[in-house]
Amino acid sequence: MTYTNILENINYPHDLKNLNRTELKQLADELREYILHNVSKTGGHLASNLGSVELTVALHYVYDTPNDKLVWDVGHQSYPHKILTGRRNKMDTLRQTNGLAGFPKRDESEYDTFGVGHSSTSISAALGMVVGNRQRGKQDKVVAIIGDGSMTAGLAFEGLNNAGWLNTDMLVILNDNEMSISENVGAVSTYLSKILAGRFYNKVKDTANKALSVVPSMQKLAHKVEEHMKGMIMPSTMFEELGFNYIGPIDGHDLDQLIDTLNELKNLTGPQFLHIVTKKGQGYKLAENDPIGYHGVSTFNPNEGMQAKASAMTYTQVFGKFLCDIAKMDNEFLAITPAMREGSGMVEFAKEYPEKFFDVGIAEQHAITFAAGVATQGIKPIVAIYSTFLQRGYDQLIHDVALQNLSVLFAIDRAGIVGADGPTHNGAFDISFLRCIPNMIIMTPSDENECYQMLYTGFRLNAPVAVRYPRGSGIGKELETFNSQLMDVGKGRVLRSGKKIAFLAFGSMVYPALEAANEIDATVCDMRFVKPLDRNLISEMVAGHDYIVTVEENAIMAGAGSACVEAMLEMGIYKKQVITIGIPDQFIEHGDPKAMLGSIGLNKNGILDRLKQLQIL
Amino acid sequence: MTYTNILENINYPHDLKNLNRTELKQLADELREYILHNVSKTGGHLASNLGSVELTVALHYVYDTPNDKLVWDVGHQSYPHKILTGRRNKMDTLRQTNGLAGFPKRDESEYDTFGVGHSSTSISAALGMVVGNRQRGKQDKVVAIIGDGSMTAGLAFEGLNNAGWLNTDMLVILNDNEMSISENVGAVSTYLSKILAGRFYNKVKDTANKALSVVPSMQKLAHKVEEHMKGMIMPSTMFEELGFNYIGPIDGHDLDQLIDTLNELKNLTGPQFLHIVTKKGQGYKLAENDPIGYHGVSTFNPNEGMQAKASAMTYTQVFGKFLCDIAKMDNEFLAITPAMREGSGMVEFAKEYPEKFFDVGIAEQHAITFAAGVATQGIKPIVAIYSTFLQRGYDQLIHDVALQNLSVLFAIDRAGIVGADGPTHNGAFDISFLRCIPNMIIMTPSDENECYQMLYTGFRLNAPVAVRYPRGSGIGKELETFNSQLMDVGKGRVLRSGKKIAFLAFGSMVYPALEAANEIDATVCDMRFVKPLDRNLISEMVAGHDYIVTVEENAIMAGAGSACVEAMLEMGIYKKQVITIGIPDQFIEHGDPKAMLGSIGLNKNGILDRLKQLQIL
Repeated sequence: MTYTNILENINYPHDLKNLNRTELKQLADELREYILHNVSKTGGHLASNLGSVELTVALHYVYDTPNDKLVWDVGHQSYPHKILTGRRNKMDTLRQTNGLAGFPKRDESEYDTFGVGHSSTSISAALGMVVGNRQRGKQDKVVAIIGDGSMTAGLAFEGLNNAGWLNTDMLVILNDNEMSISENVGAVSTYLSKILAGRFYNKVKDTANKALSVVPSMQKLAHKVEEHMKGMIMPSTMFEELGFNYIGPIDGHDLDQLIDTLNELKNLTGPQFLHIVTKKGQGYKLAENDPIGYHGVSTFNPNEGMQAKASAMTYTQVFGKFLCDIAKMDNEFLAITPAMREGSGMVEFAKEYPEKFFDVGIAEQHAITFAAGVATQGIKPIVAIYSTFLQRGYDQLIHDVALQNLSVLFAIDRAGIVGADGPTHNGAFDISFLRCIPNMIIMTPSDENECYQMLYTGFRLNAPVAVRYPRGSGIGKELETFNSQLMDVGKGRVLRSGKKIAFLAFGSMVYPALEAANEIDATVCDMRFVKPLDRNLISEMVAGHDYIVTVEENAIMAGAGSACVEAMLEMGIYKKQVITIGIPDQFIEHGDPKAMLGSIGLNKNGILDRLKQLQIL
Repeated sequence: MTYTNILENINYPHDLKNLNRTELKQLADELREYILHNVSKTGGHLASNLGSVELTVALHYVYDTPNDKLVWDVGHQSYPHKILTGRRNKMDTLRQTNGLAGFPKRDESEYDTFGVGHSSTSISAALGMVVGNRQRGKQDKVVAIIGDGSMTAGLAFEGLNNAGWLNTDMLVILNDNEMSISENVGAVSTYLSKILAGRFYNKVKDTANKALSVVPSMQKLAHKVEEHMKGMIMPSTMFEELGFNYIGPIDGHDLDQLIDTLNELKNLTGPQFLHIVTKKGQGYKLAENDPIGYHGVSTFNPNEGMQAKASAMTYTQVFGKFLCDIAKMDNEFLAITPAMREGSGMVEFAKEYPEKFFDVGIAEQHAITFAAGVATQGIKPIVAIYSTFLQRGYDQLIHDVALQNLSVLFAIDRAGIVGADGPTHNGAFDISFLRCIPNMIIMTPSDENECYQMLYTGFRLNAPVAVRYPRGSGIGKELETFNSQLMDVGKGRVLRSGKKIAFLAFGSMVYPALEAANEIDATVCDMRFVKPLDRNLISEMVAGHDYIVTVEENAIMAGAGSACVEAMLEMGIYKKQVITIGIPDQFIEHGDPKAMLGSIGLNKNGILDRLKQLQIL
């Protein structure tokens, strides 16, 4: 195949060092083809990886990795890096069980200096590496590579603020493709666009010199004005205001310019900021024209592009439909997402009701405090957020929402095991970290219609409410119209009456429990609420059965099962054996979601096996 | 008394409206005296409240509160606001049980638009209010008042970024006293200082005009250059880059200028940013000269100033000593605080070992990811953080530290009930939200020496470790030298052997449990570790007693007691009655810490009462 002419001989970065510029450029082309070829077979992140090819080649060419450290932000752009650092032949295992992770991961390679998945950690981590390094007497170079989307998060700002202050030798590369996963929002992105449009500093310098050169004595003044502008007046960019030396913007697909610039920057002292401009999907026309669609892809034929696939309605789509449906009947709400319009199923709602749709950028903290502010004015905010990203807004949820008992609805997607994205994205902890918060109401829908009705109930309740639902589809239950009778808060329901064993099942594990129960004639309760719990139902179940089995797709530690036991203790009914089934106390790796769930016993067979193992069956 | 001439007739903001400027200034003086007088009797935040007097008078004079909304950041500066909004006569109850809260609080007054305590929420909350307001068709003005210290937090940046983008009508006032609680750190503070030093834009404009006016045709060019500078080249401050109209800096103690400026700003559209400069402690020389010492005070005589009081060693001081002591024997570590040098007991360490001390500003997220970066280089980071502020770094703890199993020691201060600061500052949840995270080791010292030894053990362990200790002093146990034999991870100890009842006690509740046990001849275990738990010890206790009573200063929900029960279930020993004692499922109000603990049954009598109530005694 053509694409292996040079690439097939490149196993590690040192293999790059003897290539000439022409060969390096060919390597970039081959890399791009190799990525397209592989990702079309495995699925994964495509557009951003096509955009970072030249940058990756230049970095590994110029720097002495892994002694020098590259810190990739988020990791959506790390496939070229993986290919050049010993993992080329494993790219066909990407994001699959026991295969390569979709993100940099320290266990996987010494070239992966910092594990990522969540955004905006790179500057802080890189600064930590520089400081730690210096304390060991080492002078290794450290480079953080961050996208413009990730720059909107407070963490990135905190990192810049500290790095500029400490004045350490490090390089931050802003890989600016004028997008996050979807279009960028936020004042910073407007600002970056202005920089790109103006390339202003050089431009005005040129103008001034030209205009003034006719009057020789004015040259000196022009120089003085320039000095003012560089120094006393103000630094020329926000990044210089934060203590960085700003260089750019330069073309991130121009390998020569990248290499020359990096070679210069490598030996400068103090914090350096290089602004490069790339195109998401670069080199693959279909992705260039639809970088949002080609951000994360399933398998497809590169010649034909992605084809729409009919599939069962996902919980994400249920949420999207819920938003559009309440918008038809109620005006006093708005919906907020921290940069997850597509992922949270809000595309149609955003289009139909743009005045009610607030994409606040990658800013989970702000999303929640902003929602709290909205709620104080009697408008209901609905915050759509993945379970794993809610971790970033935890303090805001406690301090700004729950403590003030404000009426905010949290639609928590990707709760439980997410599959290919792996441990950084699993929503394994939300029940544990939410249920200890006073005032919270927490619901776990067992199927699509339950989710739809729970969202509606949560919308109507005047309290902080969370509805947590898993990634993907449920059992395919059709949605009914909204029940005018809201769900009873804190009431579960019995789905099946049986003997000896009662399952207290939550959310996505209700149907697997039901399948297991059908085989052994056990009782199944769909608990519906983690908080408040249906104590009467628990009490009945304890009275009428020998064994209580709780089942949930959340950490067993501090999870919903644990809540059931707490309730039993408080009610003084503690003499039945309780078995708590859920996610064990470990981070769950990436892989096929069904396989991953099976591997930790979270399906019918897993439940039955567990009961057999305990000699209950 | 002199200070009531005008103030005694001011009960609500409308009483201000008819005062002339001279009277307003006198009012400011009286307010300042009133605050000093009251805070010297109640304790509380002093220096920042003395600094915000004129601003508060001007805001309530110019704006139509409470229809117009003032959103105070943190709330360290809200006493003048409280006094002017119906609460003057309750100032002597400040921070006391059933008295006024130390921070704005929605339940307390309609003038308190948003409850605070944690920093940097004001811009996001104010933006939410504007947006919610508009959706209800209202045009009330909204003003966020934020200090320069709070500007370093990512949340403030996220709020600015979103507000600038949405281009809504709101005013952000930066109350710049060039300090947070201690000296400011971070590039932003340097930048703000530059603005203050330069007032640069006007200055260069003047210079340019003067220099160029001699050549008339050059005037036009100068104008063009100026246009470039204002527009195309770059906005003149970081805040304009973020989409705000920047005004300032102006003197925040000049009431006339404040009123005139606010009157103008009130009617401008779009996001406005007013930069005012104030002096912490203004008007009280002792506080002006020692604004850090007078940030938060106990009772004192205003004429004499604060006197050093001898008191028992606090846990905070134990941590400070621990840092200094390990620095004498080990070079390969560093200590990180998010702006809590004084509060975390690090003053001496920072002075002795400045190269090992990292105050990163109010930036909990960054503090933890930075620590993770340091840990990757084999240097041990010690993160000193209050339990309540750790909530802000939750995602970073999971995603950057625990998932990568990095060796970071978290010294968690103020775990449990904090007293006067109230619900925003209670550390009620950390055991619940930490113990669900894989790889974590969590220790709870029962006395000062345990704390000291646990910190040392945590320092030597190669894992993510948390040591959580309460506010204030313990039983007064003297510190021993570090044990060369580290504590056994996951091992508790029996402090007292008795009958029938076994207490499994954690941290600060070990000694209260012991006092109770002494009265009823019960067994007491100091569990020491929440994670991993000492299962053998639990097993023994269950075997040898009729009742197991867990006691902790953390939420019962998902707390350490719940963990003990989970362990019993897993071991198949579930037939003994277990009573879990801890913080109930509600936010605990401010007040005397001992009284607050007593009110929720967390002392000897509370424990005994609970057992009597359950008819176990």
